Amino acid sequence: MTTGPDVLRIVRGAGIDILDQTRLPHHEVTLELRGVEAVCEAIRSLRVRGAPLLGLTGACAMAIAAETLGGGDDSLAEAASIITATRPTAVDLGAGVRRALERALGAGPRPGDRVRALWDNAEEMAEERMAEDGAIGTYGAAILPRGAVLTHCNTGVLATGGSGTALGVIAAAHRQGTLSHCYATETRPLLQGARLTMWELQRMGIPATLAPDTAAATLIASGRIQAVITGADRIAANGDTANKVGTYGLAVVAARHAVPFFIAAPCTTIDHGCADGAAIPIEFRDEAEVGGFGEQRWAPAGTRAFNPAFDVTPGELIAGIVTERGVLRSPYPEAIARLPRGR
Amino acid sequence: MTTGPDVLRIVRGAGIDILDQTRLPHHEVTLELRGVEAVCEAIRSLRVRGAPLLGLTGACAMAIAAETLGGGDDSLAEAASIITATRPTAVDLGAGVRRALERALGAGPRPGDRVRALWDNAEEMAEERMAEDGAIGTYGAAILPRGAVLTHCNTGVLATGGSGTALGVIAAAHRQGTLSHCYATETRPLLQGARLTMWELQRMGIPATLAPDTAAATLIASGRIQAVITGADRIAANGDTANKVGTYGLAVVAARHAVPFFIAAPCTTIDHGCADGAAIPIEFRDEAEVGGFGEQRWAPAGTRAFNPAFDVTPGELIAGIVTERGVLRSPYPEAIARLPRGR
Repeated sequence: MTTGPDVLRIVRGAGIDILDQTRLPHHEVTLELRGVEAVCEAIRSLRVRGAPLLGLTGACAMAIAAETLGGGDDSLAEAASIITATRPTAVDLGAGVRRALERALGAGPRPGDRVRALWDNAEEMAEERMAEDGAIGTYGAAILPRGAVLTHCNTGVLATGGSGTALGVIAAAHRQGTLSHCYATETRPLLQGARLTMWELQRMGIPATLAPDTAAATLIASGRIQAVITGADRIAANGDTANKVGTYGLAVVAARHAVPFFIAAPCTTIDHGCADGAAIPIEFRDEAEVGGFGEQRWAPAGTRAFNPAFDVTPGELIAGIVTERGVLRSPYPEAIARLPRGR
Repeated sequence: MTTGPDVLRIVRGAGIDILDQTRLPHHEVTLELRGVEAVCEAIRSLRVRGAPLLGLTGACAMAIAAETLGGGDDSLAEAASIITATRPTAVDLGAGVRRALERALGAGPRPGDRVRALWDNAEEMAEERMAEDGAIGTYGAAILPRGAVLTHCNTGVLATGGSGTALGVIAAAHRQGTLSHCYATETRPLLQGARLTMWELQRMGIPATLAPDTAAATLIASGRIQAVITGADRIAANGDTANKVGTYGLAVVAARHAVPFFIAAPCTTIDHGCADGAAIPIEFRDEAEVGGFGEQRWAPAGTRAFNPAFDVTPGELIAGIVTERGVLRSPYPEAIARLPRGR
């Protein structure tokens, strides 16, 4: 089973083939991951990334674990814990792993049944990705103002394995003729906007312009864009949203200029047990990601760096949260509480 | 005559030796510039940069023009126009060139007198840089809150040829023991913060941490910093300030968190003829600066880019403008109107 354009292919009984996103946009390299450690390495190194796609990847990793290590209670629990720990802030990853674990245990004590249940679950999740993203695109395109939009990081097929969240909304608006232009930030330090979003926008034929993160405030202030839309890594029960570092600054500037700021994410991104943004743990990544890129170093040797992976945008700055169940609007605590929990 | 640590050395009768700032921080390369075109290339390519240092460089270029092309009225006027056009938004460059031209014409009709006047003027300006920056450092350190500070781009010795503007204030606060830490942004697309500011901070022994531009809002929101201070490329008569792109976003986020945002710049940066920020021309630079750095390209081939060199921060977001004549405070139209014009 293949999701999106070969971003993640489930090879039942064996493993997953993924597009190595760290090699884009210049090289399209497919990796055949056939063990749990290989999948964990791919997650840690961001070869596979994006909140919803990580949920699916976590579920696949559990199937691979059962296939290669056996389906015993202890080994499944240990695998779940190892896989979840690769990206501690990504709620979808943990949720995907937990769901897989529950399915396996619910299939009874026999290893063969558990393995089968885990592959069934992974394939089901891939189908859900496509369906959920399609719904997010439809709901989002209906509320996006006509004109140009700014987005941050990567939230397309490369992020979800479906058609994307924020970028899926942008693509849907483009198809229905209401989107004139898409601006994308570079998204330092890992440059997902420059490398991945620009690659996706080009492939879709959407008129697009790249901006340094530093120029986003000018874009917003200039009247060139009518909305900002990003994805989310975790949404608290009050609507506070953790997303790729840099999102919060965009939301603050957008508010000053009365440009609506939207989030697009599946309901699995909502963490009902997390009261507000202050309760969201923020992952700090390797300092070496700052002051250079790849092999190139532009900061002097010995440079220390501040490198949070995410920031938190308070719900009050968010004009709407586009989900596969519709658009959530302020007051978010009530809108989120009305959602059914779990799947 | 040498300003700062060999950033620009005037070789009277011959030209200037400059530290090639595009080779920092890994290589300290001195270029011997001996003709107007060589100086213009160095300005255009940002080998020499920073608003105040550009003023001095412009004055030196005029002396070199007279030395190599003769001191006739027409050839001086043409040189002035060519030099000024290399960086149209940098008011200090134009002001430095104009001042040199006036000195030359005021020295009488004889080419020898004009050449001598132009070298005298260049040396005088270098001395003024040192004196002005010293005063800015003293005034600024007196008002900077005790604690940590965030700065953007490069405003140190590499920018002014003296002790620096915003970074000079930071250095003075460090010397007097009131500065605990300095955070610097990378400053995409040309990474002056990562390459130059971190190099200067290390050399001065100031505890320093580099942040991606995307993480600055998190730094401000987290309470880790007590002030933001940057330089300026042009200050309008009402206090609106053009500075390196990315400054405006910092000022907006700082205002939201009641963190004071300061500008440090010599009075020559003030353009009394420019009513407000809307009247400041914004230079757009080569699109290829975005989506890569140096030879490395991370955006797909054919990527279009939005690449303004500057943005404009409205005076209402600025807690104080530190000049060599003291700290200007709101209301800026009145504070700026009280300043003596010219030198």
